[in-house]
Amino acid sequence: MAGCRKVKGGVCSAKGFRAAGVAAEIKYKGRNDVALIVADEPCSAAAVFTTNKVAAAPVVYDRSVVKGGRVQAILANSGCANACTGEQGLEDARLSALVTAGELGLDPHHVLVASTGVIGRRLPVDRLLAGMKSATKALGRTGAHGLAAAKAIMTTDTRPKEACATVTIGGKKVTVGGMSKGSGMIEPNMATMLGFLTTDAAISPRMLKRALQLAVGRSFNRLVVDGDESTNDSLFVLASGKAGNRVIDAPGKDFDAFRAALETVCVSLARQMATDGEGATKFVTVTVKGAKTERDAERAARAVAKSPLAKTSWFGKDPNWGRVLAAVGYSGAEVVDMKSEVFYDGVWAFRFGKVADEKQLARLAKVMQKDAFSVVVDLHLGSAESTIYTCDLSLDYVHINADYTT
Amino acid sequence: MAGCRKVKGGVCSAKGFRAAGVAAEIKYKGRNDVALIVADEPCSAAAVFTTNKVAAAPVVYDRSVVKGGRVQAILANSGCANACTGEQGLEDARLSALVTAGELGLDPHHVLVASTGVIGRRLPVDRLLAGMKSATKALGRTGAHGLAAAKAIMTTDTRPKEACATVTIGGKKVTVGGMSKGSGMIEPNMATMLGFLTTDAAISPRMLKRALQLAVGRSFNRLVVDGDESTNDSLFVLASGKAGNRVIDAPGKDFDAFRAALETVCVSLARQMATDGEGATKFVTVTVKGAKTERDAERAARAVAKSPLAKTSWFGKDPNWGRVLAAVGYSGAEVVDMKSEVFYDGVWAFRFGKVADEKQLARLAKVMQKDAFSVVVDLHLGSAESTIYTCDLSLDYVHINADYTT
Repeated sequence: MAGCRKVKGGVCSAKGFRAAGVAAEIKYKGRNDVALIVADEPCSAAAVFTTNKVAAAPVVYDRSVVKGGRVQAILANSGCANACTGEQGLEDARLSALVTAGELGLDPHHVLVASTGVIGRRLPVDRLLAGMKSATKALGRTGAHGLAAAKAIMTTDTRPKEACATVTIGGKKVTVGGMSKGSGMIEPNMATMLGFLTTDAAISPRMLKRALQLAVGRSFNRLVVDGDESTNDSLFVLASGKAGNRVIDAPGKDFDAFRAALETVCVSLARQMATDGEGATKFVTVTVKGAKTERDAERAARAVAKSPLAKTSWFGKDPNWGRVLAAVGYSGAEVVDMKSEVFYDGVWAFRFGKVADEKQLARLAKVMQKDAFSVVVDLHLGSAESTIYTCDLSLDYVHINADYTT
Repeated sequence: MAGCRKVKGGVCSAKGFRAAGVAAEIKYKGRNDVALIVADEPCSAAAVFTTNKVAAAPVVYDRSVVKGGRVQAILANSGCANACTGEQGLEDARLSALVTAGELGLDPHHVLVASTGVIGRRLPVDRLLAGMKSATKALGRTGAHGLAAAKAIMTTDTRPKEACATVTIGGKKVTVGGMSKGSGMIEPNMATMLGFLTTDAAISPRMLKRALQLAVGRSFNRLVVDGDESTNDSLFVLASGKAGNRVIDAPGKDFDAFRAALETVCVSLARQMATDGEGATKFVTVTVKGAKTERDAERAARAVAKSPLAKTSWFGKDPNWGRVLAAVGYSGAEVVDMKSEVFYDGVWAFRFGKVADEKQLARLAKVMQKDAFSVVVDLHLGSAESTIYTCDLSLDYVHINADYTT
């Protein structure tokens, strides 16, 4: 989209938002674990949630909040997922939202809550609310404030994730900023991620929701880490309207410009999440093209991105195209091996039955040394194409997940 | 089934079969890599193959052989999968079968071939056929001969896999024996496995096929290692008729007795394959019961067995029931978390919203130390039940698969 620029920034970049991140000992000492994002006024809002049938309490609570289409604050914590906690968990989520609204003097129906961490433990509401109170005192509009909030939602993430983009709409500069956390359990329908987006665009809740769904389809829903899907995934977007553009309430040029900025931010966050997938040493873009149908392209690319054998071969720096093609073969997609080609960063490994020789393997070996590369399978059966962002499966993935709770 | 007994044995246990395993340097020096199984006369035969659309050359070749319903020999190799090798690969498979038939003086349409190993390398036909020739000289009817053959098809397996059962049919003792290899890429539809079963039962090819399909549904198709599915999976059964029972050519008591013995052998081999899954430190039986439908039970159990997060928690000896329940939640099965229970070897970890306390966690910690345990999820929504055999996801799984080809 002409005029859409990726810039440095986060949830405080758009006009009308303050943020804070504080340490409240939800699970560990001395690390940020409570984030608060507050808009100056009630915002147009939209959200996307996990499709997991075991949905965490905050997800259940938030679904009713976003129906109203207006939100002014987000309270989030890491260290405890408040999932599989039943009526008590729901009550804890509700109470956290209400006390936050009271503390900030907001409409109690305008507060969203989000949690991430271990499943099946009761939310330590007292510590969370103490954290929320100190967060209200720490609120600010600088990049440092946004970063502190981004840090507070990290679990096994090794880096905070922020992104920002600007675009001109009707002569006005519109900013979209955001933050998110990964980093395991990431698959279709955006598993364990929390993502909070803010914008100063003026846009109706209905069009905001539409823009969000389109952006998710091209970003977070194209992300596979391990194929697990979490109970807590939540992605929110709040639009303050402070940019002063004419309210976007229908499709058209303005809507497309806004969508471009929103998508830029979402894609950047999604890529950061894949790069920082649990234990990841490689960021891999898997593309299946020349597929007979969109559905074939999609499921073939997902099968490769989820295949433990393909993922471990990337970790092992091994251009093992056989595992890639085998995954395509069991994905359900139409494939004729002798018509197919497999490329790593444009270097062919297999084409129409021809296998990489020693010279070609030397070229491939160079690609496999990289921290990021693409795997492209061209099926030569049609024109459908699909891309998935993913990472390798490393020893550290196992270390991290074998040692997580106890 | 009354009278069905599991006994020690393998492919040479049933009357009418000889076997051999020899070292032919297909890929490595000094290890058995060519197996030969030869029946005294043409046998009634049936087979099940991979559903992967990228099927290896031997699979394509064998499909036409088994249509005839009669087989007298199986030639198998490890070290090279002869997959993604196009017309050349098919020609290599055909040639191997024909030369074997010539060497043994058999009908060329009565020889099956099977390969396992690296994808995309041409089969070293000269070495394979040299191995076949020495194998014909080494053929014998003892357990040691069966074991040598079982060893020759191992890839990353750490142990050869054999099983045997006997049953009385119409006053005659009938024996079913078998061997198989795993050990990664094992999922629905029996991914990278080779399995060869022999029996002295007299049974028609049609009923043999039916018995095999039923047995596979309760054994190999209930096995998940990593969720990948190979290009080479093949399971054969040869029936010599030497037991002297009246030919089983219709359903009934005799058929049921035979099925029981066949299933006993298949389940034993499947369990050995899960226990010896790549890098496995735990054999885990996942059961989902109380499901609304059979399909729900099945997909929920498979989701848990495939979940990298659940599998790494088992490796970490962590009773992380939250990951188990989350996998059920995204499986597509109906689930209400507050109505569910999760047990490890009968010890509850989560029941109806109640979470294991310190005392209960101590009990669970003991279970997690075991080399084998069950994970049971009771959904309390119906009466459907499904069980999957699987293993954990360990550091060694990653080691093995990161270092396999290059």
